Amino acid sequence: MSKYQNIKEEAYKQNLLLPELNLVLFTFGNVSVADRNENVFAIKPSGVPYEDLQVQDMVIVDFDGNIIEGELNPSSDTKTHAVLYKHWEDINAISHTHSTYATAWAQSQRPIPIFGTTHADHLTKDIPCAPPMSDEQIKGNYEYETGFQILDHFKVERIDYKEVEMVLVGNHAPFTWSKDPKKAVYNSAVLEEVAKMAWLTEQINPNAPRLKQSLINKHYERKHGPDSYYGQ
Amino acid sequence: MSKYQNIKEEAYKQNLLLPELNLVLFTFGNVSVADRNENVFAIKPSGVPYEDLQVQDMVIVDFDGNIIEGELNPSSDTKTHAVLYKHWEDINAISHTHSTYATAWAQSQRPIPIFGTTHADHLTKDIPCAPPMSDEQIKGNYEYETGFQILDHFKVERIDYKEVEMVLVGNHAPFTWSKDPKKAVYNSAVLEEVAKMAWLTEQINPNAPRLKQSLINKHYERKHGPDSYYGQ
Amino acid sequence: MSKYQNIKEEAYKQNLLLPELNLVLFTFGNVSVADRNENVFAIKPSGVPYEDLQVQDMVIVDFDGNIIEGELNPSSDTKTHAVLYKHWEDINAISHTHSTYATAWAQSQRPIPIFGTTHADHLTKDIPCAPPMSDEQIKGNYEYETGFQILDHFKVERIDYKEVEMVLVGNHAPFTWSKDPKKAVYNSAVLEEVAKMAWLTEQINPNAPRLKQSLINKHYERKHGPDSYYGQ
Amino acid sequence: MSKYQNIKEEAYKQNLLLPELNLVLFTFGNVSVADRNENVFAIKPSGVPYEDLQVQDMVIVDFDGNIIEGELNPSSDTKTHAVLYKHWEDINAISHTHSTYATAWAQSQRPIPIFGTTHADHLTKDIPCAPPMSDEQIKGNYEYETGFQILDHFKVERIDYKEVEMVLVGNHAPFTWSKDPKKAVYNSAVLEEVAKMAWLTEQINPNAPRLKQSLINKHYERKHGPDSYYGQ
Repeated sequence: MSKYQNIKEEAYKQNLLLPELNLVLFTFGNVSVADRNENVFAIKPSGVPYEDLQVQDMVIVDFDGNIIEGELNPSSDTKTHAVLYKHWEDINAISHTHSTYATAWAQSQRPIPIFGTTHADHLTKDIPCAPPMSDEQIKGNYEYETGFQILDHFKVERIDYKEVEMVLVGNHAPFTWSKDPKKAVYNSAVLEEVAKMAWLTEQINPNAPRLKQSLINKHYERKHGPDSYYGQ
Repeated sequence: MSKYQNIKEEAYKQNLLLPELNLVLFTFGNVSVADRNENVFAIKPSGVPYEDLQVQDMVIVDFDGNIIEGELNPSSDTKTHAVLYKHWEDINAISHTHSTYATAWAQSQRPIPIFGTTHADHLTKDIPCAPPMSDEQIKGNYEYETGFQILDHFKVERIDYKEVEMVLVGNHAPFTWSKDPKKAVYNSAVLEEVAKMAWLTEQINPNAPRLKQSLINKHYERKHGPDSYYGQ
Repeated sequence: MSKYQNIKEEAYKQNLLLPELNLVLFTFGNVSVADRNENVFAIKPSGVPYEDLQVQDMVIVDFDGNIIEGELNPSSDTKTHAVLYKHWEDINAISHTHSTYATAWAQSQRPIPIFGTTHADHLTKDIPCAPPMSDEQIKGNYEYETGFQILDHFKVERIDYKEVEMVLVGNHAPFTWSKDPKKAVYNSAVLEEVAKMAWLTEQINPNAPRLKQSLINKHYERKHGPDSYYGQ
Repeated sequence: MSKYQNIKEEAYKQNLLLPELNLVLFTFGNVSVADRNENVFAIKPSGVPYEDLQVQDMVIVDFDGNIIEGELNPSSDTKTHAVLYKHWEDINAISHTHSTYATAWAQSQRPIPIFGTTHADHLTKDIPCAPPMSDEQIKGNYEYETGFQILDHFKVERIDYKEVEMVLVGNHAPFTWSKDPKKAVYNSAVLEEVAKMAWLTEQINPNAPRLKQSLINKHYERKHGPDSYYGQ
């Protein structure tokens, strides 16, 4: 049995959640789970339908994007995952989808405004939208540069990846992540729901105000603060 | 067996209707059912997935928000439920969701206009939207204050909670209730459908008029008046 | 066995299609099927959930709205059905829903423009929207007057009920019918789909033109004309 | 056993994917699969519900639209399929639906702008919308002319049918095709998703820019170029 069996199983399980949560059409998505001791991650193979996927199909890749174990090609987005794992040391899973509403926001190249407590229960800022890459980046090592595009945007905007576990890549689609391997896909689903609500909110009231700062803080602290009292 | 077994079972049953009626993502909702003889209510524990929920997980809380029985933490919205039970003596169940369309109206901080008979079959007024709280209220006992925000809005707008069994809390999401324990979740589903129809109505005709008063009265009396002839 | 067993069974079957086709929430709809030899129709009882419905629950009513057989109250919309059967002698089934998109058009008080061949495959005109009733009509025998409101609108607009088997009742919701007992609910589903497409069409292009007359004629004749070649 | 058994089975299988992928209401769609050695295609019979469909119901038709084998009438769109097979020699399957979002774009008579990489992963141009036919064409051999309307539009716009495997027919609905018999219906589903995303993108940002040319090229080459690295 592979020494990477644990992350293969977790990656398999998390990948299957994507169709179950209606976050993907066909193979338009992929999830990876990292093993921080071994400095590798397990990721979905490219273009394999979810209904045919098996645990042993997961590909093991290191944080520079080299394939370590596996007979199939890894997801075409593998290098983006590698860059994020390499530079953000506290994340253990990454989820990438083309979910409908989040992708529409990415295509419209706008961050998603924080309009309510559903959003504030998860993060205290607008959901960032990294701008499309320069032509040079695109012509270069594209998926690798997608990772840097995300890193750079968080740096420039002074956003902490441990507080904001999601991003829209302009013209492309969302990426989400988490310290807890079970939360990256959860974040993809939350993002999709928040994206739909924000679109509707602007439709109903084009002048809808962003959430008051005091409410933002309250809802965040309720779940994540030192005196949090949400959950068990 | 607990002396509160009846309301635990009913609360359990009503909570499970939320995912069945597509009113919640993950754990974004909670239902409670009261026992007016014992002055307590049974409510969903906080953050427990619906698929793992069991009857004995329901937490028994009194109308001041004190836990009376149960090993799990009650829903983080428990104090809002307590305030409503304490001040509105004729309600026996409360349902809270972040259902998509109703929440979008709450985020847009607008009451839902009464556009048709689907709405009028259930209530004779626009669905009220309580304004966001003051910063003082938010910094204080937040969930407790959410309850008072609802009570105050009904008082100021002279709305009878026995006729209007639902409210949007501005920037947050809807609460619904009922005298009949089986109707609180029913009202959440009706609200979500009415919210979607009202949004579409304004999209199709930005000048769509509110329902004529004579039709409002007729449809309400048909179901609730002294000569009602709806149902068995 | 009741002499009306046939229409009870057909009405039961057609009523169950409403939830199966996602055309109703809870009990917001009802279907009836007529026996033209007996001058009666079978209709859903009022307020009974679809999952509890049984064949023998169907209520037999004559074309003046009198109950002929059955232990339950018939649907509150029964008199509207009776008026349509009495005056439109070639219809054998009627379906009434509050389906989301069709109801939104009814609430916006606009007929649905004929934008494409999906619409033209079924009818050659905009889907009519009867205006809300006068206050006098509403205060009178309301459901009875709803029937006359539909009849009058078709008379004034010179619409043939055998060609246009559907109507929106302003502020209320759609009614559909057919000569073939199996087609009334089918028409409800077609209307809902056409209503959604027409809304989207105007969203995508506010200046979208109505379908050319030559295409309207072609598609209608293809299915309904003397040289029709659609189906078996 | 019929010498056309292979394409009958494949056409049957592909037709059943339409309801499974939520691309059709009732019988509003049809798929055909060609046998290039025999110069025929198998197509769904007209007006037969998908749940009643059987392999042997598929009708065998030649590229001039003549029925070669089968007891049922072929789809009313058969001549459109025939024209496309006859003139585009590298396609082996065609799928026609009235899927909601793609049809709304067809009704609005606009090509679908390329807004993101979900679109660019499949084709490098806006999704073309053939204009409605002239009155003469409509009065003539209508379904035959629909085929020519598509051919002419691709010729005038200098679009290669091998690169752009989909079209909207103005006022009507989409057609998609492929060299690989399994990809025509896949393309129908991709088109529907891209159509929904593009509508939402314009709703969220009416000034959303089309995708940069460098990104268009990159995503297309990633899947289809000589150095493609997508899939296994």
